[in-house]
Amino acid sequence: MVTGVPRLRLFVEDTLATDARVALAPEQAHRLLHVRRAAPGEPVALFNGRDGEWLARLEASGKRSATLAVESMLRPQAAESDLWLLFAPIKRGPVDLMVEKATELGVAALHPVWTRHTDAQRLNLDRLRAIAIEAAEQCGRLTVPATHPPRKLEEAIAEWPADRRLIVLDESGRGAPIATVLSSLTDDRAAILVGPEGGFAESELDALRGLAFAVAADLGPRILRAETAAIAALACYQALGPGGR
Amino acid sequence: MVTGVPRLRLFVEDTLATDARVALAPEQAHRLLHVRRAAPGEPVALFNGRDGEWLARLEASGKRSATLAVESMLRPQAAESDLWLLFAPIKRGPVDLMVEKATELGVAALHPVWTRHTDAQRLNLDRLRAIAIEAAEQCGRLTVPATHPPRKLEEAIAEWPADRRLIVLDESGRGAPIATVLSSLTDDRAAILVGPEGGFAESELDALRGLAFAVAADLGPRILRAETAAIAALACYQALGPGGR
Repeated sequence: MVTGVPRLRLFVEDTLATDARVALAPEQAHRLLHVRRAAPGEPVALFNGRDGEWLARLEASGKRSATLAVESMLRPQAAESDLWLLFAPIKRGPVDLMVEKATELGVAALHPVWTRHTDAQRLNLDRLRAIAIEAAEQCGRLTVPATHPPRKLEEAIAEWPADRRLIVLDESGRGAPIATVLSSLTDDRAAILVGPEGGFAESELDALRGLAFAVAADLGPRILRAETAAIAALACYQALGPGGR
Repeated sequence: MVTGVPRLRLFVEDTLATDARVALAPEQAHRLLHVRRAAPGEPVALFNGRDGEWLARLEASGKRSATLAVESMLRPQAAESDLWLLFAPIKRGPVDLMVEKATELGVAALHPVWTRHTDAQRLNLDRLRAIAIEAAEQCGRLTVPATHPPRKLEEAIAEWPADRRLIVLDESGRGAPIATVLSSLTDDRAAILVGPEGGFAESELDALRGLAFAVAADLGPRILRAETAAIAALACYQALGPGGR
């Protein structure tokens, strides 16, 4: 049955405007045609990170292709959280989870950073981007977080924008409680930095402590896995930070 | 090399006291002997939820068995968070993740509840208990959260202890911001209730709104998966609730 309420929400790169036509990527066409078994006229919500959210309908389909006709705007583009997540690459399962949950929790940019104790040797940015897109489609965001190529932590620090606070998840117990750190933020330009499973090296923590834009935060007495720490800090930021207050 | 700092932390049921002997379960013996390749004298930290954390050493081992000699107390038993998580059973991957992260985030008891829109038909409590034990071992807790058998939501509500606040993660947008809800709590007897992927039925939300001990909380504008909502609320509770303040 074709109704007016989209059951599917898709991210596309195309410009969205009344009467535009959008050809879906093969994987999206597959989800629409074969997983959702969509018939012509099926409504789909589209967003591209720039033009808001639009109602479109399935117009034509081939075996691996689908074209949608854009009808009308559902929601205008709106400002979203300007929070970055800096993370040391960890194993595949946990890093995938971290990217999915960070997207749900409104992160604007994902910045992998190599640290002294980082075990992982490689990071598949294409996979992380695909995970971020699917999570953004599912959670109703109007953007997909930017996925940046990995840099060394020192390089990220050296090029740091001075007006953005860097909240370091410091497992040494010397940080201030995360609630205190977050309630002291005055604007939404912030970043959260989470280390690898092995933690930060003492020299890294020393270097971070010397930076005017950095502040060390403590997540409590339990030893959290890296991805848990990231997710917990992001959840607290959305509840307590400038965007959530 | 055998040093004094335990690389492994294990939960056991036995009483822990100086000179006690503890025979490990086969799976734990396997981890100690074959994964960690422990030699006699290997230090292990033990906890049982009652007697604090103790240093023990590998004394004797067979092919699938290991006996530890308990030496001295590392940490006395201490009060931990008295927070419950009530959750509608969801798919295996997400429910496993929720239990692992809830344990890391200090939940005292896991209460599965069947709701109107719960899809999952079964719940393997033994598996959830094993996940909770491993997460407790890893995160340094002195307890393992209690895993209760599933009940209907109505039954859990009918038998509810009146002095325990029930924080309902209400995705309808009618709850107060979670930070507001948490900062109004006066003691640590609380529970967080998260619904299934399909959300609560309107009749369930109506019934919950009529309860003096229940309060509806909102996690922000994005649509969070059930396990993300649970993890986010627990992280906020630990940062903002009576235990974290």
